Amino acid sequence: MSNAQAGDLVLLISDDRKRFLIRLQHEGEWHTHRGLLRHDDLIGQPLGRTVRTQIGHPFLALEPSTHDLIQQLRRVTQIIFPKDAAYIVMRLNCYPGRRVVEAGTGSGGLTLALARAVMPGGRVYSYEEQPRMLDLARRNLQRAALLDYVELKGRDIAEGFDEQDADACFLDLREPWRYLAQARAALKPGGFFGSILPTANQVSELVAALEQHGFVEIEVEELLLRPYKPIAERLRPTDRMVAHTGYLVFARAVAVEDAAAWRYRDPKHGVPKGSEE
Amino acid sequence: MSNAQAGDLVLLISDDRKRFLIRLQHEGEWHTHRGLLRHDDLIGQPLGRTVRTQIGHPFLALEPSTHDLIQQLRRVTQIIFPKDAAYIVMRLNCYPGRRVVEAGTGSGGLTLALARAVMPGGRVYSYEEQPRMLDLARRNLQRAALLDYVELKGRDIAEGFDEQDADACFLDLREPWRYLAQARAALKPGGFFGSILPTANQVSELVAALEQHGFVEIEVEELLLRPYKPIAERLRPTDRMVAHTGYLVFARAVAVEDAAAWRYRDPKHGVPKGSEE
Amino acid sequence: MSNAQAGDLVLLISDDRKRFLIRLQHEGEWHTHRGLLRHDDLIGQPLGRTVRTQIGHPFLALEPSTHDLIQQLRRVTQIIFPKDAAYIVMRLNCYPGRRVVEAGTGSGGLTLALARAVMPGGRVYSYEEQPRMLDLARRNLQRAALLDYVELKGRDIAEGFDEQDADACFLDLREPWRYLAQARAALKPGGFFGSILPTANQVSELVAALEQHGFVEIEVEELLLRPYKPIAERLRPTDRMVAHTGYLVFARAVAVEDAAAWRYRDPKHGVPKGSEE
Amino acid sequence: MSNAQAGDLVLLISDDRKRFLIRLQHEGEWHTHRGLLRHDDLIGQPLGRTVRTQIGHPFLALEPSTHDLIQQLRRVTQIIFPKDAAYIVMRLNCYPGRRVVEAGTGSGGLTLALARAVMPGGRVYSYEEQPRMLDLARRNLQRAALLDYVELKGRDIAEGFDEQDADACFLDLREPWRYLAQARAALKPGGFFGSILPTANQVSELVAALEQHGFVEIEVEELLLRPYKPIAERLRPTDRMVAHTGYLVFARAVAVEDAAAWRYRDPKHGVPKGSEE
Repeated sequence: MSNAQAGDLVLLISDDRKRFLIRLQHEGEWHTHRGLLRHDDLIGQPLGRTVRTQIGHPFLALEPSTHDLIQQLRRVTQIIFPKDAAYIVMRLNCYPGRRVVEAGTGSGGLTLALARAVMPGGRVYSYEEQPRMLDLARRNLQRAALLDYVELKGRDIAEGFDEQDADACFLDLREPWRYLAQARAALKPGGFFGSILPTANQVSELVAALEQHGFVEIEVEELLLRPYKPIAERLRPTDRMVAHTGYLVFARAVAVEDAAAWRYRDPKHGVPKGSEE
Repeated sequence: MSNAQAGDLVLLISDDRKRFLIRLQHEGEWHTHRGLLRHDDLIGQPLGRTVRTQIGHPFLALEPSTHDLIQQLRRVTQIIFPKDAAYIVMRLNCYPGRRVVEAGTGSGGLTLALARAVMPGGRVYSYEEQPRMLDLARRNLQRAALLDYVELKGRDIAEGFDEQDADACFLDLREPWRYLAQARAALKPGGFFGSILPTANQVSELVAALEQHGFVEIEVEELLLRPYKPIAERLRPTDRMVAHTGYLVFARAVAVEDAAAWRYRDPKHGVPKGSEE
Repeated sequence: MSNAQAGDLVLLISDDRKRFLIRLQHEGEWHTHRGLLRHDDLIGQPLGRTVRTQIGHPFLALEPSTHDLIQQLRRVTQIIFPKDAAYIVMRLNCYPGRRVVEAGTGSGGLTLALARAVMPGGRVYSYEEQPRMLDLARRNLQRAALLDYVELKGRDIAEGFDEQDADACFLDLREPWRYLAQARAALKPGGFFGSILPTANQVSELVAALEQHGFVEIEVEELLLRPYKPIAERLRPTDRMVAHTGYLVFARAVAVEDAAAWRYRDPKHGVPKGSEE
Repeated sequence: MSNAQAGDLVLLISDDRKRFLIRLQHEGEWHTHRGLLRHDDLIGQPLGRTVRTQIGHPFLALEPSTHDLIQQLRRVTQIIFPKDAAYIVMRLNCYPGRRVVEAGTGSGGLTLALARAVMPGGRVYSYEEQPRMLDLARRNLQRAALLDYVELKGRDIAEGFDEQDADACFLDLREPWRYLAQARAALKPGGFFGSILPTANQVSELVAALEQHGFVEIEVEELLLRPYKPIAERLRPTDRMVAHTGYLVFARAVAVEDAAAWRYRDPKHGVPKGSEE
């Protein structure tokens, strides 16, 4: 049985495709400019159907996915996009039971995806120095019922993470290259490192610093999501798309004395224009 | 403590960047043309370091990620790429405790990613009609220690899935549009549907059929992964990349009588060349 | 000497980066909400500098490129983007002296690029059945001083092109597959064929029809233009980009009896996911 | 009439899709491991048809396009790809009668495209310091019958170009930022500047230097060409594609005292992840 229950998050979609998240509670009411929706009309009923406000406006009621939760996050800065969050979760090998450290928390979008992946036995330790952001992230995680799997810490990581032997470490900071010693200290030997950066200049700085700090298997990647208009007889990409969310950088922490031997070497075969230098 | 133990999977990387997966066992030996490696040299020791064969050849020993496991899969057909698998896991809302049905299993690459996401409490029910493929998938899942979370079923799904009220359903079949009634019957109301298809013609067929079968929130997307050479002072994309792995199609199963109202409507604003029809 | 002269087109860019095209004439005046600019202040002077209205507002005065002309085109429908126009010119082998037939003209954006390429000795024969569009295209070409190299014809091409032995033929029509006999009749043996189409369904139809009509060397391509923010210390792609302008289809007209032997054959090596069918 | 004549270049395609360029001459013979082809069997005949060697092997005979000529270039280094060459021609506003300076010539691929665009009245002045490269470029341009429109100069440009008041300048050098004074001196006021660079680091250096040297309207772009398998009933992108040919940089030379006012300013609206800095 999968009927909606008190405490569940529900995604409501209006007929002009606006999306809203509500948490069901007995005798709760959701007020909208299209009328009022009683939570008790949803509780105990299946989702995946149209519900109507008392003045007849339709909403499609659905269970929200992690993808929806990230997109509906309350935010003051930009968030990590779901396509990137999903890929980071896999690249950092986050699965039930794992322990991950993260800085900074931001609005908590990636934290949410990480928590969903490592729950119930794992933990996300997330650091954020701005109290306003930390507060926002806490509310976002609470709304998603994931706060139990996250420890939020209101400070920067200059003095280091509290954790050791973490399985993975993700740095979403402007200058992650300044915190690689801290990342290493928190990670278990061979642990997974990741970062996301908006500019190529930052990627260059981080890659250089990772090599100096004994990280290997350094990989830089971008994910481009191209949406299509879902029209069977006129299938085509949408007119516009997001061109850039961030460069993703991944690496593994290895014994410092071993790192030099495993540096990246350019294969140099089949090189196009300009690769000759 | 995170030292390697008997039973662990270990990724070994040679100095020409070839990658091998072994499962540690007491007194085990790994024979390679570069010499012999004793498992007992790894057991009880930290990973993230260089190990050497008895004739001195170095290998980097690392814990494999889900990403690595998918890439190292034994396969007879092509597999779903990690970037797509990670995104499918999130779009289908697969997290610990969820129940997912899948057809066909293929080599088990997506099955592996789904199992990692829904374990320990959830289950993947995966159907594959070719005995040879099913066998391969079983061995791949066993090697990844994920078989406990998967029920493999050796038949096609023409007669339907055994499961009901599943949270999500993924069809990796040549003609998924023929099995949408079965998908609906297996899914809970509002459940998550996904598919991957190589050709645009198939996408058109599937989108049309999804609309006829009461699926809404249909989305068609592609993920392009662009790798960079990780060289700080000469940052640039690699020379070549994978241009196409598959079109991803997602949808939600809703009450059939409600579906028509929630069909995709083309916004038609800011449309480029040719959209006038 | 390359000072601006009466009759020249000049691109004026305001300090909020709006772009305007004017044609210089003695005693001409350009009225803008930022004041008045006298053409005689530009005539006889070099371009590439700031000019000011009589109330002091600055404009950057530049020679417009073909790229600028296409972007500044007066249009009622969407135009072919400069990136596509440039590539079509090269793929159709349009250079000085060549003869090209085109249908339909639309706003004349591609016509303009083709005319620039084949002038002075070549000609573009461009067909458009909508009088309103033909008129617009004529004014656009006149403004660009390219009308001398174009013959505009106000009819559809169902009854065929007037021309024979043309070097190239481009069809920018909704159903180009209906006019391939006409295209063949206009082209010289081995002539260059091109088309641009917004949807994958149309591409499938056109590819099938091209094979039936004795076209070979069929190629389907897309060009994606990714712009970057030109900031030296923070280099990164722009936030959004155009995701789709059109699928480009190119082919060569060969002797009908020879065509079957030169059909596309799928190489089938190194095939990813799903290519097995 | 468009039959092949002595002196024409002809593209021959074998049935395993290998491509060869030959120049027709009376009594000429083309020897291949598939037999001998007499030029006189082609001269005076239409192209766009199958021709056979004396032992019966078929070749498709076609007129080569500029695109084909670039792809068939004899080269020792990588060449500028046709998609980029076509776009550069348009961005630099190269059309019949224009004067363009270029350094370095390399194998002459872009030179060829520029010459085709500015002929018959225009000229390309192309500088190359390596005698071996210059020689190769000369032979490539001669084979394409374009040498009449090009002046090849065997020296580097440290001491400047010989030309002044050029319409456009293209630098295909490893460190183009060292030659911007020379580029300015060669260009007319407002002239068009372009460059292609493989790495992001180089782009940063060039953008900074362009601003210092009074260039404005700086644009950085990439063109990605995505090819499809031209199969009507199974339309899909190819498995792999070229991921990177080069970053394209364009700018305009303006009066130095005016340049600062027209610098790029980041619009900062709708910015994604990370753009906050």
